[in-house]
Amino acid sequence: MQPPYLLFLGDVGDQLAAKTAHGILEWRRTWCLGQLRLPGCKADLGLPELSPAEARARGARTMIVAVANSGGVLAEHWVSTIVTALEAGLDVASGLHQRLGDFPAIAAAAARCGRTLTDVRHPKQRFKTGTGVRRPGKRLLTVGTDCSCGKKYTALAIEREMRARGWKADFRATGQTGIMIAGEGVAIDAVVADFISGAVEWLTPANDPDHWDVIEGQGSLFHPAFAGVSLGLLHGAQPDALVLCHEPTRRHMRGLPQQPLPSLEDCIELNLRCARLTNPDVRLVGLSINTANLPEGEREDYLARLSAEYGLPAVDPIATGVAPIVDRLP
Amino acid sequence: MQPPYLLFLGDVGDQLAAKTAHGILEWRRTWCLGQLRLPGCKADLGLPELSPAEARARGARTMIVAVANSGGVLAEHWVSTIVTALEAGLDVASGLHQRLGDFPAIAAAAARCGRTLTDVRHPKQRFKTGTGVRRPGKRLLTVGTDCSCGKKYTALAIEREMRARGWKADFRATGQTGIMIAGEGVAIDAVVADFISGAVEWLTPANDPDHWDVIEGQGSLFHPAFAGVSLGLLHGAQPDALVLCHEPTRRHMRGLPQQPLPSLEDCIELNLRCARLTNPDVRLVGLSINTANLPEGEREDYLARLSAEYGLPAVDPIATGVAPIVDRLP
Repeated sequence: MQPPYLLFLGDVGDQLAAKTAHGILEWRRTWCLGQLRLPGCKADLGLPELSPAEARARGARTMIVAVANSGGVLAEHWVSTIVTALEAGLDVASGLHQRLGDFPAIAAAAARCGRTLTDVRHPKQRFKTGTGVRRPGKRLLTVGTDCSCGKKYTALAIEREMRARGWKADFRATGQTGIMIAGEGVAIDAVVADFISGAVEWLTPANDPDHWDVIEGQGSLFHPAFAGVSLGLLHGAQPDALVLCHEPTRRHMRGLPQQPLPSLEDCIELNLRCARLTNPDVRLVGLSINTANLPEGEREDYLARLSAEYGLPAVDPIATGVAPIVDRLP
Repeated sequence: MQPPYLLFLGDVGDQLAAKTAHGILEWRRTWCLGQLRLPGCKADLGLPELSPAEARARGARTMIVAVANSGGVLAEHWVSTIVTALEAGLDVASGLHQRLGDFPAIAAAAARCGRTLTDVRHPKQRFKTGTGVRRPGKRLLTVGTDCSCGKKYTALAIEREMRARGWKADFRATGQTGIMIAGEGVAIDAVVADFISGAVEWLTPANDPDHWDVIEGQGSLFHPAFAGVSLGLLHGAQPDALVLCHEPTRRHMRGLPQQPLPSLEDCIELNLRCARLTNPDVRLVGLSINTANLPEGEREDYLARLSAEYGLPAVDPIATGVAPIVDRLP
């Protein structure tokens, strides 16, 4: 995936569906030259609207299919735009489950134009099953009450804070957006189920005793569709430190109107309990709250209340930064 | 997979590694004409030793690669035997992760001889992500303290007992051996991680209110490699009833000498707690203990003690049968 990028948003129905695009923009702004949207698209990055040819003329190398949806499906009516991008001289990268090359028109255009297709969600490695054996090095994992509540953002912010202090630290990407930001990683939800933990053990190998892997969490132990991924990731990561991520205004699990969110207390307790299987010394070191949707002026009180209740730093990674959490790490 | 079968055991190092073969033999004895073993094989089914040609002459239709190993690898030195079987006129079926057809010599021989290769662990279906929405019909799931401790056997025994009573009941296979016994199912550890729960929702669809799906469990919530599979299966199954399976003489998790077994109490509590996410009415209805390795004469006391401790039937599905558990179901 060569930057700079043109970010393709399709015709997704809300901003959250474009979280891949938002993430790349947030952490690699200089790589993002423009956006390409189809009629009806409800997401907007505030970038210049560029056709593939215009983006190519400004120096873009890759068009990123920068959207997420439940199931990871590539819409049939996006195919012609992807073909146009290939014909304009752009490579194309996607984080969806469905492979770009499985669409005959896309595969043919890539071959015809000599362009590269990258499916971030289809790891090329062959993994082993996990062992749970302890590895040297320190590990922090972000976990959450739900999907899309700040786990990637928090991990990236913690890596940045650690590096600013001169610590040895690496963000370890486990999802499509994280991989596009880090340039490497494993899309853990795309791994064959038997190898979830083993893939995480591969992703965060033995390291120096004072080195931190800051691992991007996925899903939630309380999400009926994705909890298996979250648990395998938790066991494979064998984290020394957990940070719980939460979006306090959400009324139900993302995409599932019938499914209530867990309480913070239940979520903390179950994550710690399960994490002890592979690291008995695991500790919760902070709460990372996405307060963007809280009413004006409530953030400070809310974070102070949480912090008092749990005796831990409670931060908003954007508004307050994550320094108080990093302060607590050994 | 057309029966009758020739069961190929390779040169596996112990009887447990041939659990696929033992399972097929136990539940479909009339389909099993013979066994084929390589030098050094430590497993023995007590069946006639047959070459592929001899098996074909006795009417065999399919040679089953009837072994399991961690990682699901097909040994390179088994390939020539598989080619010989194809040349003798047998189809070949395997439950390993590695596909038969990925070995060029096997693919070529199958094409040359017009034989069928079946990889049970590679589902052809495309699944959706899970939803957790309640479905009509009743569901029982077997869960365990570890891998290979009786979950499949218990589920098959419960299906047989239910059918003997005239109940509507279907065994739902989630592993290679179960699928070879049932003739259908989903190898849940081979599904892409994002779709574990969704695949189970597909496998056990809405049904009559008085119909029981008896679902084969996999792994353990306490196994560092496979707990993600177990949790996704638990959520997708949304079981009304759980049966806990256990092998009381095991000293550590299968394949992991450093990993102790959980207590029955912890295992029950965590399974019930997690199961409530998709079925708040879930109940534990019995304990199914593989007592084969207990010292002579200890079985009765052990089961009586467990039964008193938990106030539930404690059975050995082979020695005592599962009727007391089925008696408790609504």
